[in-house]
Amino acid sequence: MSGVFLHAFEHGMGEATRIARRLAASVGPISVHSFPDEETLVTVSRPGAHACIYCPLDRPNLRLVELLLAVDALRRNGARRLVLVAPYLCYMRQDKAFHAGEAVSQQAISQLFSGLFDRIVTVDPHLHRVGTLAAVFPGIETECLSAAAAIADFAMAKGMTSDMLVAGPDEESRQWVEQIAAPLGCMSLVGEKRRLGDRRVEIEFPARSLDGKTILLTDDIVSSGGTMIEATRSLKRRGAGAIKIAVSHALFSAETGARLREAGADEIWSTTSVPHPTNCIALDPLLADALRKELE
Amino acid sequence: MSGVFLHAFEHGMGEATRIARRLAASVGPISVHSFPDEETLVTVSRPGAHACIYCPLDRPNLRLVELLLAVDALRRNGARRLVLVAPYLCYMRQDKAFHAGEAVSQQAISQLFSGLFDRIVTVDPHLHRVGTLAAVFPGIETECLSAAAAIADFAMAKGMTSDMLVAGPDEESRQWVEQIAAPLGCMSLVGEKRRLGDRRVEIEFPARSLDGKTILLTDDIVSSGGTMIEATRSLKRRGAGAIKIAVSHALFSAETGARLREAGADEIWSTTSVPHPTNCIALDPLLADALRKELE
Repeated sequence: MSGVFLHAFEHGMGEATRIARRLAASVGPISVHSFPDEETLVTVSRPGAHACIYCPLDRPNLRLVELLLAVDALRRNGARRLVLVAPYLCYMRQDKAFHAGEAVSQQAISQLFSGLFDRIVTVDPHLHRVGTLAAVFPGIETECLSAAAAIADFAMAKGMTSDMLVAGPDEESRQWVEQIAAPLGCMSLVGEKRRLGDRRVEIEFPARSLDGKTILLTDDIVSSGGTMIEATRSLKRRGAGAIKIAVSHALFSAETGARLREAGADEIWSTTSVPHPTNCIALDPLLADALRKELE
Repeated sequence: MSGVFLHAFEHGMGEATRIARRLAASVGPISVHSFPDEETLVTVSRPGAHACIYCPLDRPNLRLVELLLAVDALRRNGARRLVLVAPYLCYMRQDKAFHAGEAVSQQAISQLFSGLFDRIVTVDPHLHRVGTLAAVFPGIETECLSAAAAIADFAMAKGMTSDMLVAGPDEESRQWVEQIAAPLGCMSLVGEKRRLGDRRVEIEFPARSLDGKTILLTDDIVSSGGTMIEATRSLKRRGAGAIKIAVSHALFSAETGARLREAGADEIWSTTSVPHPTNCIALDPLLADALRKELE
Protein backbone atom coordinates (compact mmCIF):
# COMPACT_ATOMS: atom_id res chain seq x y z
CA MET A 1 0.00 0.00 0.00
CA SER A 2 1.38 3.42 -0.93
CA GLY A 3 0.39 6.64 0.80
CA VAL A 4 -0.47 7.41 4.38
CA PHE A 5 -3.03 5.22 6.18
CA LEU A 6 -3.90 7.13 9.34
CA HIS A 7 -4.20 10.93 9.40
CA ALA A 8 -4.32 12.95 12.60
CA PHE A 9 -4.51 16.54 13.78
CA GLU A 10 -1.89 17.72 16.24
CA HIS A 11 -4.27 17.14 19.20
CA GLY A 12 -4.57 13.44 18.31
CA MET A 13 -1.08 12.75 17.01
CA GLY A 14 0.15 10.84 20.09
CA GLU A 15 -2.76 8.42 20.14
CA ALA A 16 -2.80 8.02 16.35
CA THR A 17 0.89 7.18 16.38
CA ARG A 18 0.31 4.42 18.97
CA ILE A 19 -2.57 3.00 16.88
CA ALA A 20 -0.52 3.09 13.67
CA ARG A 21 2.42 1.39 15.37
CA ARG A 22 0.17 -1.54 16.35
CA LEU A 23 -0.88 -1.86 12.71
CA ALA A 24 2.62 -1.34 11.30
CA ALA A 25 0.97 1.44 9.27
CA SER A 26 2.03 4.98 8.46
CA VAL A 27 0.62 8.04 10.17
CA GLY A 28 0.63 11.56 8.74
CA PRO A 29 -0.08 14.96 10.24
CA ILE A 30 -3.08 17.06 9.23
CA SER A 31 -1.78 20.58 9.57
CA VAL A 32 -4.06 23.49 10.42
CA HIS A 33 -3.12 27.08 9.64
CA SER A 34 -5.28 29.95 10.90
CA PHE A 35 -5.45 33.12 8.81
CA PRO A 36 -5.93 36.56 10.39
CA ASP A 37 -9.63 36.48 9.36
CA GLU A 38 -10.11 33.24 11.36
CA GLU A 39 -10.37 31.08 8.27
CA THR A 40 -8.55 27.77 8.46
CA LEU A 41 -6.30 26.13 5.90
CA VAL A 42 -5.98 22.37 6.25
CA THR A 43 -3.19 20.40 4.59
CA VAL A 44 -2.87 16.60 4.56
CA SER A 45 -0.19 14.09 3.70
CA ARG A 46 -0.71 11.99 0.58
CA PRO A 47 -3.39 9.46 1.56
CA GLY A 48 -3.71 5.88 0.46
CA ALA A 49 -6.90 4.77 -1.28
CA HIS A 50 -8.15 3.58 2.13
CA ALA A 51 -7.53 6.36 4.61
CA CYS A 52 -8.55 6.93 8.23
CA ILE A 53 -8.83 10.24 10.09
CA TYR A 54 -8.23 10.15 13.83
CA CYS A 55 -10.20 13.00 15.39
CA PRO A 56 -11.70 13.17 18.87
CA LEU A 57 -14.59 15.65 18.62
CA ASP A 58 -14.34 17.17 22.07
CA ARG A 59 -14.26 20.80 20.87
CA PRO A 60 -17.04 20.12 18.43
CA ASN A 61 -17.63 23.36 16.54
CA LEU A 62 -13.98 23.98 15.79
CA ARG A 63 -13.19 20.32 15.06
CA LEU A 64 -16.16 19.81 12.73
CA VAL A 65 -15.01 22.49 10.30
CA GLU A 66 -11.41 21.26 10.42
CA LEU A 67 -12.74 17.77 9.70
CA LEU A 68 -14.86 18.99 6.78
CA LEU A 69 -11.79 20.63 5.24
CA ALA A 70 -9.57 17.61 5.92
CA VAL A 71 -12.04 15.36 4.12
CA ASP A 72 -11.97 17.66 1.09
CA ALA A 73 -8.16 17.51 1.06
CA LEU A 74 -8.04 13.71 1.46
CA ARG A 75 -10.69 12.99 -1.17
CA ARG A 76 -9.07 15.24 -3.77
CA ASN A 77 -5.71 13.59 -3.03
CA GLY A 78 -6.87 10.09 -3.78
CA ALA A 79 -8.73 8.71 -0.73
CA ARG A 80 -11.59 6.60 -2.07
CA ARG A 81 -12.63 5.02 1.23
CA LEU A 82 -12.57 7.30 4.28
CA VAL A 83 -12.94 6.11 7.86
CA LEU A 84 -13.56 8.53 10.70
CA VAL A 85 -11.99 7.37 13.96
CA ALA A 86 -13.67 9.62 16.50
CA PRO A 87 -13.19 7.97 19.90
CA TYR A 88 -15.43 10.72 21.25
CA LEU A 89 -18.40 11.56 19.05
CA CYS A 90 -20.02 14.94 19.64
CA TYR A 91 -23.66 16.04 19.51
CA MET A 92 -25.14 12.60 20.29
CA ARG A 93 -27.20 13.85 23.25
CA GLN A 94 -29.54 16.23 21.40
CA ASP A 95 -31.42 13.34 19.77
CA LYS A 96 -34.85 14.98 19.76
CA ALA A 97 -36.38 18.44 20.00
CA PHE A 98 -37.06 18.86 23.71
CA HIS A 99 -38.78 22.22 23.04
CA ALA A 100 -40.47 23.74 20.00
CA GLY A 101 -38.07 25.01 17.34
CA GLU A 102 -34.97 23.17 18.52
CA ALA A 103 -32.48 21.64 16.14
CA VAL A 104 -31.95 17.91 16.54
CA SER A 105 -28.17 18.22 16.51
CA GLN A 106 -27.65 14.46 16.31
CA GLN A 107 -29.54 14.42 13.01
CA ALA A 108 -27.65 17.44 11.67
CA ILE A 109 -24.35 15.65 12.37
CA SER A 110 -25.71 12.47 10.81
CA GLN A 111 -26.53 14.38 7.61
CA LEU A 112 -23.16 16.11 7.56
CA PHE A 113 -21.20 12.88 8.06
CA SER A 114 -23.25 10.93 5.50
CA GLY A 115 -21.65 13.06 2.80
CA LEU A 116 -18.16 12.71 4.20
CA PHE A 117 -17.37 9.24 5.51
CA ASP A 118 -17.74 5.59 4.54
CA ARG A 119 -17.30 4.26 8.05
CA ILE A 120 -17.32 5.69 11.57
CA VAL A 121 -15.50 4.05 14.45
CA THR A 122 -16.25 5.39 17.90
CA VAL A 123 -16.16 4.49 21.58
CA ASP A 124 -19.17 4.62 23.92
CA PRO A 125 -21.32 7.15 22.07
CA HIS A 126 -23.92 8.64 24.39
CA LEU A 127 -27.01 7.15 22.76
CA HIS A 128 -30.36 7.36 24.41
CA ARG A 129 -33.61 7.50 22.42
CA VAL A 130 -31.96 6.37 19.18
CA GLY A 131 -30.51 3.11 20.41
CA THR A 132 -27.80 2.19 17.91
CA LEU A 133 -25.13 4.05 15.99
CA ALA A 134 -26.36 2.35 12.80
CA ALA A 135 -29.75 4.01 13.34
CA VAL A 136 -28.09 7.41 13.82
CA PHE A 137 -25.96 7.05 10.66
CA PRO A 138 -28.10 4.91 8.35
CA GLY A 139 -25.97 5.39 5.23
CA ILE A 140 -22.59 4.72 6.84
CA GLU A 141 -20.85 1.64 8.23
CA THR A 142 -20.59 2.11 11.97
CA GLU A 143 -18.54 0.49 14.67
CA CYS A 144 -19.38 1.19 18.23
CA LEU A 145 -16.63 0.09 20.61
CA SER A 146 -16.83 -0.03 24.39
CA ALA A 147 -14.16 1.09 26.82
CA ALA A 148 -15.79 -0.86 29.67
CA ALA A 149 -13.37 -3.81 29.46
CA ALA A 150 -10.35 -1.47 29.31
CA ILE A 151 -11.64 0.37 32.38
CA ALA A 152 -12.28 -2.89 34.27
CA ASP A 153 -8.79 -4.14 33.37
CA PHE A 154 -7.25 -0.89 34.57
CA ALA A 155 -9.21 -0.99 37.83
CA MET A 156 -8.07 -4.56 38.42
CA ALA A 157 -4.46 -3.59 37.77
CA LYS A 158 -4.91 -0.82 40.36
CA GLY A 159 -5.98 -3.37 42.98
CA MET A 160 -9.78 -3.40 42.65
CA THR A 161 -11.26 -6.56 44.17
CA SER A 162 -14.70 -8.17 44.10
CA ASP A 163 -15.69 -6.93 47.57
CA MET A 164 -15.62 -3.35 46.30
CA LEU A 165 -18.54 -1.67 44.54
CA VAL A 166 -19.02 -0.16 41.06
CA ALA A 167 -21.42 2.79 41.20
CA GLY A 168 -23.14 4.99 38.61
CA PRO A 169 -24.90 8.27 39.25
CA ASP A 170 -28.20 7.54 37.49
CA GLU A 171 -30.39 5.07 35.59
CA GLU A 172 -28.74 6.05 32.28
CA SER A 173 -25.40 4.80 33.60
CA ARG A 174 -26.75 1.41 34.74
CA GLN A 175 -25.80 -0.57 31.64
CA TRP A 176 -22.36 1.04 31.69
CA VAL A 177 -21.86 0.27 35.40
CA GLU A 178 -22.85 -3.36 34.90
CA GLN A 179 -20.43 -3.79 32.00
CA ILE A 180 -17.59 -2.73 34.27
CA ALA A 181 -18.82 -4.53 37.40
CA ALA A 182 -19.28 -7.92 35.69
CA PRO A 183 -15.65 -8.70 34.77
CA LEU A 184 -14.54 -7.43 38.21
CA GLY A 185 -17.14 -9.64 39.95
CA CYS A 186 -18.33 -6.54 41.87
CA MET A 187 -21.84 -5.58 42.98
CA SER A 188 -23.22 -2.48 41.28
CA LEU A 189 -25.02 0.49 42.78
CA VAL A 190 -27.02 3.03 40.79
CA GLY A 191 -28.22 6.43 41.99
CA GLU A 192 -31.42 8.29 41.32
CA LYS A 193 -30.92 11.69 39.72
CA ARG A 194 -33.12 14.80 39.60
CA ARG A 195 -31.82 17.44 37.16
CA LEU A 196 -32.39 21.05 38.27
CA GLY A 197 -30.63 22.78 35.29
CA ASP A 198 -27.59 22.46 33.00
CA ARG A 199 -25.28 22.31 35.99
CA ARG A 200 -27.40 21.42 39.06
CA VAL A 201 -28.57 17.96 40.05
CA GLU A 202 -29.59 16.01 43.16
CA ILE A 203 -28.55 12.35 43.49
CA GLU A 204 -29.74 9.78 46.02
CA PHE A 205 -28.31 6.26 46.27
CA PRO A 206 -30.44 3.35 47.58
CA ALA A 207 -30.49 3.28 51.40
CA ARG A 208 -27.57 1.04 52.27
CA SER A 209 -24.55 1.60 54.43
CA LEU A 210 -21.38 1.60 52.37
CA ASP A 211 -19.36 0.84 55.46
CA GLY A 212 -16.05 2.29 54.32
CA LYS A 213 -16.02 0.25 51.10
CA THR A 214 -13.93 1.40 48.13
CA ILE A 215 -16.16 2.53 45.28
CA LEU A 216 -15.43 2.81 41.58
CA LEU A 217 -17.80 5.58 40.49
CA THR A 218 -18.20 5.66 36.73
CA ASP A 219 -20.05 7.30 33.85
CA ASP A 220 -19.54 7.59 30.09
CA ILE A 221 -19.11 11.39 29.96
CA VAL A 222 -18.11 13.96 32.57
CA SER A 223 -18.52 17.51 31.32
CA SER A 224 -19.71 20.21 33.75
CA GLY A 225 -19.11 17.57 36.43
CA GLY A 226 -22.26 18.52 38.35
CA THR A 227 -23.57 14.95 38.29
CA MET A 228 -20.32 13.32 39.40
CA ILE A 229 -19.61 15.89 42.12
CA GLU A 230 -23.07 15.34 43.57
CA ALA A 231 -22.75 11.55 43.23
CA THR A 232 -19.40 11.62 45.04
CA ARG A 233 -20.85 13.69 47.89
CA SER A 234 -23.88 11.43 48.10
CA LEU A 235 -21.69 8.28 48.32
CA LYS A 236 -19.58 9.92 51.02
CA ARG A 237 -22.76 10.72 53.01
CA ARG A 238 -23.63 7.01 52.85
CA GLY A 239 -20.25 6.13 54.38
CA ALA A 240 -18.18 5.27 51.30
CA GLY A 241 -14.43 4.72 51.80
CA ALA A 242 -12.06 5.57 48.95
CA ILE A 243 -13.75 6.75 45.73
CA LYS A 244 -12.09 6.25 42.35
CA ILE A 245 -13.75 7.92 39.40
CA ALA A 246 -13.45 6.32 35.97
CA VAL A 247 -14.89 7.97 32.86
CA SER A 248 -14.79 7.13 29.22
CA HIS A 249 -14.88 10.73 27.93
CA ALA A 250 -13.26 13.38 30.13
CA LEU A 251 -14.61 16.73 28.91
CA PHE A 252 -14.22 18.56 32.21
CA SER A 253 -12.06 21.51 33.19
CA ALA A 254 -9.17 21.53 35.68
CA GLU A 255 -11.48 23.43 38.05
CA THR A 256 -14.08 20.66 37.87
CA GLY A 257 -11.32 18.12 38.52
CA ALA A 258 -10.38 20.04 41.68
CA ARG A 259 -14.03 20.15 42.79
CA LEU A 260 -14.36 16.38 42.27
CA ARG A 261 -11.33 15.84 44.50
CA GLU A 262 -12.74 18.26 47.09
CA ALA A 263 -16.03 16.33 47.04
CA GLY A 264 -14.14 13.16 47.98
CA ALA A 265 -12.70 11.55 44.83
CA ASP A 266 -9.29 10.05 45.57
CA GLU A 267 -8.37 9.37 41.96
CA ILE A 268 -9.79 10.25 38.57
CA TRP A 269 -9.12 7.98 35.62
CA SER A 270 -10.13 8.57 32.03
CA THR A 271 -9.60 6.86 28.71
CA THR A 272 -7.56 8.52 25.97
CA SER A 273 -10.73 9.18 23.91
CA VAL A 274 -10.42 12.89 24.72
CA PRO A 275 -6.94 14.36 25.35
CA HIS A 276 -7.05 15.24 29.08
CA PRO A 277 -4.69 15.44 32.09
CA THR A 278 -6.53 12.47 33.71
CA ASN A 279 -5.88 10.11 30.75
CA CYS A 280 -4.48 6.78 31.94
CA ILE A 281 -6.56 4.12 30.19
CA ALA A 282 -5.21 3.56 26.70
CA LEU A 283 -7.63 2.87 23.85
CA ASP A 284 -5.08 2.21 21.12
CA PRO A 285 -5.39 -1.62 21.32
CA LEU A 286 -9.18 -1.39 20.91
CA LEU A 287 -9.01 1.13 18.06
CA ALA A 288 -6.18 -0.67 16.27
CA ASP A 289 -8.25 -3.88 16.28
CA ALA A 290 -11.18 -2.04 14.72
CA LEU A 291 -8.97 -0.62 11.96
CA ARG A 292 -7.11 -3.81 11.15
CA LYS A 293 -9.64 -4.87 8.54
CA GLU A 294 -9.05 -1.64 6.58
CA LEU A 295 -5.54 -2.89 5.86
CA GLU A 296 -6.59 -6.32 4.53
CA MET B 1 -48.18 33.96 4.82
CA SER B 2 -47.98 32.43 8.28
CA GLY B 3 -44.76 31.85 10.15
CA VAL B 4 -41.56 33.85 10.32
CA PHE B 5 -39.92 34.95 7.04
CA LEU B 6 -36.45 36.14 8.05
CA HIS B 7 -34.43 34.39 10.76
CA ALA B 8 -31.34 35.93 12.35
CA PHE B 9 -28.76 35.18 15.00
CA GLU B 10 -28.18 37.80 17.68
CA HIS B 11 -25.14 39.20 15.80
CA GLY B 12 -27.29 39.97 12.75
CA MET B 13 -30.55 40.93 14.43
CA GLY B 14 -30.26 44.70 13.85
CA GLU B 15 -29.61 44.42 10.13
CA ALA B 16 -32.20 41.65 9.67
CA THR B 17 -34.81 43.80 11.39
CA ARG B 18 -34.10 46.68 8.99
CA ILE B 19 -34.39 44.33 5.99
CA ALA B 20 -37.63 42.80 7.27
CA ARG B 21 -39.12 46.25 7.89
CA ARG B 22 -38.55 47.19 4.24
CA LEU B 23 -40.39 44.03 3.21
CA ALA B 24 -43.14 44.39 5.83
CA ALA B 25 -42.13 40.87 6.82
CA SER B 26 -41.61 39.22 10.17
CA VAL B 27 -38.20 38.53 11.67
CA GLY B 28 -37.45 35.92 14.32
CA PRO B 29 -34.45 35.25 16.52
CA ILE B 30 -32.30 32.15 16.17
CA SER B 31 -31.18 31.52 19.72
CA VAL B 32 -27.88 29.83 20.50
CA HIS B 33 -27.22 28.14 23.83
CA SER B 34 -23.75 26.84 24.69
CA PHE B 35 -23.47 23.80 26.93
CA PRO B 36 -20.54 23.31 29.31
CA ASP B 37 -19.02 20.77 26.85
CA GLU B 38 -18.99 23.47 24.10
CA GLU B 39 -21.84 21.89 22.19
CA THR B 40 -24.39 24.34 20.83
CA LEU B 41 -28.18 24.15 20.94
CA VAL B 42 -29.93 26.19 18.28
CA THR B 43 -33.62 27.12 18.51
CA VAL B 44 -35.63 28.88 15.80
CA SER B 45 -39.01 30.57 15.58
CA ARG B 46 -41.70 28.84 13.53
CA PRO B 47 -40.63 29.41 9.90
CA GLY B 48 -42.86 29.97 6.91
CA ALA B 49 -42.58 27.58 3.96
CA HIS B 50 -40.20 30.12 2.36
CA ALA B 51 -37.66 31.11 4.98
CA CYS B 52 -34.46 33.15 4.88
CA ILE B 53 -31.53 33.02 7.29
CA TYR B 54 -29.53 36.21 7.73
CA CYS B 55 -25.99 35.23 8.70
CA PRO B 56 -22.76 37.12 7.98
CA LEU B 57 -20.01 34.49 8.01
CA ASP B 58 -17.23 36.60 9.45
CA ARG B 59 -16.31 34.17 12.24
CA PRO B 60 -16.53 31.25 9.88
CA ASN B 61 -15.83 28.13 11.91
CA LEU B 62 -18.22 29.04 14.69
CA ARG B 63 -20.90 30.42 12.38
CA LEU B 64 -20.87 27.43 10.02
CA VAL B 65 -21.83 24.95 12.72
CA GLU B 66 -24.51 27.29 14.09
CA LEU B 67 -25.84 27.60 10.55
CA LEU B 68 -25.86 23.84 10.02
CA LEU B 69 -27.91 23.41 13.20
CA ALA B 70 -30.26 26.29 12.33
CA VAL B 71 -30.99 24.69 8.95
CA ASP B 72 -31.88 21.42 10.67
CA ALA B 73 -34.26 23.28 12.99
CA LEU B 74 -35.90 25.28 10.17
CA ARG B 75 -36.32 22.31 7.83
CA ARG B 76 -37.91 20.11 10.51
CA ASN B 77 -40.23 22.99 11.42
CA GLY B 78 -41.68 23.39 7.96
CA ALA B 79 -39.26 25.43 5.82
CA ARG B 80 -39.40 23.95 2.31
CA ARG B 81 -37.39 26.68 0.56
CA LEU B 82 -34.39 28.05 2.44
CA VAL B 83 -32.45 31.13 1.41
CA LEU B 84 -29.09 31.98 2.97
CA VAL B 85 -28.50 35.71 3.19
CA ALA B 86 -24.79 35.90 3.92
CA PRO B 87 -23.70 39.44 3.08
CA TYR B 88 -20.16 38.24 3.78
CA LEU B 89 -19.39 34.77 2.45
CA CYS B 90 -16.42 32.99 4.02
CA TYR B 91 -13.81 30.70 2.51
CA MET B 92 -14.03 32.06 -1.03
CA ARG B 93 -10.30 32.81 -1.28
CA GLN B 94 -8.94 29.26 -1.02
CA ASP B 95 -10.25 28.37 -4.49
CA LYS B 96 -7.42 26.02 -5.45
CA ALA B 97 -4.69 23.97 -3.78
CA PHE B 98 -1.70 26.30 -3.77
CA HIS B 99 0.50 23.54 -2.32
CA ALA B 100 0.28 19.74 -2.35
CA GLY B 101 -2.27 18.29 0.08
CA GLU B 102 -4.23 21.47 0.70
CA ALA B 103 -7.99 21.48 1.06
CA VAL B 104 -9.83 23.64 -1.44
CA SER B 105 -11.96 25.31 1.21
CA GLN B 106 -14.20 27.02 -1.33
CA GLN B 107 -15.19 23.61 -2.68
CA ALA B 108 -15.76 22.17 0.78
CA ILE B 109 -18.14 25.04 1.56
CA SER B 110 -19.84 24.56 -1.80
CA GLN B 111 -20.49 20.91 -0.97
CA LEU B 112 -21.73 21.73 2.50
CA PHE B 113 -24.14 24.44 1.31
CA SER B 114 -25.47 22.35 -1.57
CA GLY B 115 -27.13 20.10 1.00
CA LEU B 116 -28.50 23.00 3.02
CA PHE B 117 -29.80 25.88 0.89
CA ASP B 118 -31.93 26.52 -2.17
CA ARG B 119 -30.58 30.01 -2.79
CA ILE B 120 -27.62 32.07 -1.60
CA VAL B 121 -27.66 35.87 -1.58
CA THR B 122 -24.36 37.57 -0.91
CA VAL B 123 -22.48 40.82 -1.43
CA ASP B 124 -19.11 41.14 -3.19
CA PRO B 125 -17.78 37.61 -2.69
CA HIS B 126 -14.03 37.51 -3.15
CA LEU B 127 -13.93 35.41 -6.33
CA HIS B 128 -10.75 34.98 -8.25
CA ARG B 129 -10.01 31.87 -10.31
CA VAL B 130 -13.62 30.64 -10.21
CA GLY B 131 -15.25 33.69 -11.72
CA THR B 132 -18.92 33.47 -10.78
CA LEU B 133 -20.88 32.47 -7.72
CA ALA B 134 -22.99 30.16 -9.91
CA ALA B 135 -19.82 28.24 -10.80
CA VAL B 136 -18.88 27.94 -7.11
CA PHE B 137 -22.36 26.69 -6.11
CA PRO B 138 -23.57 24.82 -9.20
CA GLY B 139 -26.63 23.24 -7.58
CA ILE B 140 -27.95 26.37 -5.88
CA GLU B 141 -29.58 29.58 -7.08
CA THR B 142 -27.10 32.38 -6.43
CA GLU B 143 -27.40 36.12 -6.27
CA CYS B 144 -24.26 38.16 -6.15
CA LEU B 145 -24.92 41.77 -5.15
CA SER B 146 -22.43 44.63 -5.24
CA ALA B 147 -21.95 47.27 -2.57
CA ALA B 148 -20.09 49.54 -5.03
CA ALA B 149 -23.09 51.79 -5.73
CA ALA B 150 -23.88 52.10 -2.01
CA ILE B 151 -20.25 53.05 -1.32
CA ALA B 152 -20.24 55.61 -4.17
CA ASP B 153 -23.52 57.11 -2.89
CA PHE B 154 -22.12 57.35 0.60
CA ALA B 155 -18.88 58.98 -0.63
CA MET B 156 -20.91 61.52 -2.60
CA ALA B 157 -23.04 62.31 0.44
CA LYS B 158 -19.80 62.88 2.35
CA GLY B 159 -18.70 65.50 -0.20
CA MET B 160 -16.65 63.46 -2.67
CA THR B 161 -16.29 65.29 -6.00
CA SER B 162 -15.03 64.29 -9.43
CA ASP B 163 -11.62 65.95 -8.99
CA MET B 164 -10.76 63.48 -6.26
CA LEU B 165 -9.33 59.99 -6.91
CA VAL B 166 -10.54 56.47 -6.18
CA ALA B 167 -7.60 54.15 -5.46
CA GLY B 168 -7.18 50.41 -5.00
CA PRO B 169 -4.13 48.64 -3.57
CA ASP B 170 -3.63 46.03 -6.32
CA GLU B 171 -4.71 44.59 -9.68
CA GLU B 172 -7.34 42.42 -7.99
CA SER B 173 -9.09 45.55 -6.75
CA ARG B 174 -9.17 47.25 -10.18
CA GLN B 175 -12.69 46.18 -11.16
CA TRP B 176 -13.95 47.17 -7.73
CA VAL B 177 -12.25 50.58 -7.88
CA GLU B 178 -13.70 51.28 -11.32
CA GLN B 179 -17.23 50.39 -10.18
CA ILE B 180 -16.97 53.03 -7.46
CA ALA B 181 -15.09 55.64 -9.53
CA ALA B 182 -17.52 55.56 -12.47
CA PRO B 183 -20.69 56.91 -10.75
CA LEU B 184 -18.54 59.52 -8.96
CA GLY B 185 -16.91 60.59 -12.25
CA CYS B 186 -13.48 60.17 -10.60
CA MET B 187 -10.21 58.94 -12.09
CA SER B 188 -8.98 55.65 -10.66
CA LEU B 189 -5.53 54.67 -9.50
CA VAL B 190 -4.38 51.09 -8.92
CA GLY B 191 -1.27 49.99 -7.03
CA GLU B 192 1.13 47.15 -7.69
CA LYS B 193 1.42 44.68 -4.81
CA ARG B 194 4.15 42.24 -3.85
CA ARG B 195 3.08 39.81 -1.10
CA LEU B 196 5.84 38.84 1.38
CA GLY B 197 3.71 36.63 3.71
CA ASP B 198 0.24 36.44 5.34
CA ARG B 199 0.68 39.88 6.81
CA ARG B 200 3.50 41.62 4.86
CA VAL B 201 3.21 43.33 1.49
CA GLU B 202 4.86 46.09 -0.55
CA ILE B 203 2.72 48.42 -2.67
CA GLU B 204 3.81 50.91 -5.30
CA PHE B 205 1.43 53.31 -7.08
CA PRO B 206 2.16 54.57 -10.61
CA ALA B 207 4.60 57.50 -10.57
CA ARG B 208 2.33 60.52 -10.39
CA SER B 209 2.17 63.38 -7.94
CA LEU B 210 -1.06 63.30 -5.98
CA ASP B 211 -0.65 66.97 -5.17
CA GLY B 212 -2.68 67.02 -1.97
CA LYS B 213 -5.73 65.43 -3.61
CA THR B 214 -8.33 63.64 -1.48
CA ILE B 215 -8.28 59.89 -2.14
CA LEU B 216 -10.95 57.27 -1.59
CA LEU B 217 -8.90 54.12 -1.01
CA THR B 218 -11.03 51.01 -1.34
CA ASP B 219 -10.98 47.22 -1.36
CA ASP B 220 -13.54 44.45 -0.96
CA ILE B 221 -12.06 42.90 2.22
CA VAL B 222 -9.75 44.28 4.91
CA SER B 223 -8.61 41.58 7.32
CA SER B 224 -5.06 41.72 8.72
CA GLY B 225 -4.97 45.21 7.16
CA GLY B 226 -1.38 44.79 5.92
CA THR B 227 -2.35 45.65 2.34
CA MET B 228 -4.37 48.76 3.22
CA ILE B 229 -1.84 50.07 5.74
CA GLU B 230 0.92 49.80 3.14
CA ALA B 231 -1.31 51.32 0.43
CA THR B 232 -2.14 54.27 2.71
CA ARG B 233 1.54 54.87 3.45
CA SER B 234 2.43 54.58 -0.23
CA LEU B 235 -0.26 57.14 -1.21
CA LYS B 236 0.99 59.52 1.49
CA ARG B 237 4.54 59.18 0.12
CA ARG B 238 3.19 60.26 -3.28
CA GLY B 239 1.72 63.41 -1.71
CA ALA B 240 -1.90 62.39 -1.15
CA GLY B 241 -4.11 64.78 0.85
CA ALA B 242 -6.96 63.35 2.95
CA ILE B 243 -7.42 59.58 2.64
CA LYS B 244 -10.83 57.98 3.23
CA ILE B 245 -10.90 54.20 3.34
CA ALA B 246 -14.04 52.38 2.18
CA VAL B 247 -14.38 48.60 2.42
CA SER B 248 -17.16 46.21 1.72
CA HIS B 249 -16.22 43.63 4.36
CA ALA B 250 -14.52 44.93 7.51
CA LEU B 251 -12.89 41.92 9.16
CA PHE B 252 -10.13 43.85 10.91
CA SER B 253 -9.40 44.36 14.61
CA ALA B 254 -9.52 47.64 16.55
CA GLU B 255 -5.71 47.54 16.60
CA THR B 256 -5.59 47.37 12.79
CA GLY B 257 -8.05 50.30 12.65
CA ALA B 258 -5.68 52.33 14.82
CA ARG B 259 -2.72 51.40 12.60
CA LEU B 260 -4.66 52.47 9.49
CA ARG B 261 -5.30 55.86 11.09
CA GLU B 262 -1.64 56.12 12.13
CA ALA B 263 -0.63 55.36 8.54
CA GLY B 264 -2.68 58.32 7.36
CA ALA B 265 -6.34 57.30 6.95
CA ASP B 266 -8.63 60.14 8.03
CA GLU B 267 -11.82 58.11 7.99
CA ILE B 268 -12.70 54.43 7.63
CA TRP B 269 -16.08 53.47 6.22
CA SER B 270 -17.48 49.97 5.91
CA THR B 271 -20.74 48.40 4.84
CA THR B 272 -22.93 46.55 7.33
CA SER B 273 -22.03 43.18 5.73
CA VAL B 274 -19.92 42.35 8.79
CA PRO B 275 -20.90 43.85 12.18
CA HIS B 276 -18.04 46.28 12.88
CA PRO B 277 -17.44 49.63 14.65
CA THR B 278 -16.72 51.29 11.27
CA ASN B 279 -20.12 50.35 9.78
CA CYS B 280 -21.79 53.34 8.16
CA ILE B 281 -22.93 52.16 4.73
CA ALA B 282 -26.25 50.36 5.06
CA LEU B 283 -26.95 47.34 2.89
CA ASP B 284 -30.54 46.73 3.92
CA PRO B 285 -32.04 48.38 0.80
CA LEU B 286 -29.91 46.16 -1.47
CA LEU B 287 -30.65 42.98 0.48
CA ALA B 288 -34.36 43.72 0.86
CA ASP B 289 -34.63 44.12 -2.94
CA ALA B 290 -32.98 40.75 -3.46
CA LEU B 291 -35.41 39.08 -1.05
CA ARG B 292 -38.59 40.72 -2.33
CA LYS B 293 -39.23 37.96 -4.85
CA GLU B 294 -39.29 35.35 -2.08
CA LEU B 295 -42.46 37.00 -0.81
CA GLU B 296 -44.34 36.96 -4.12
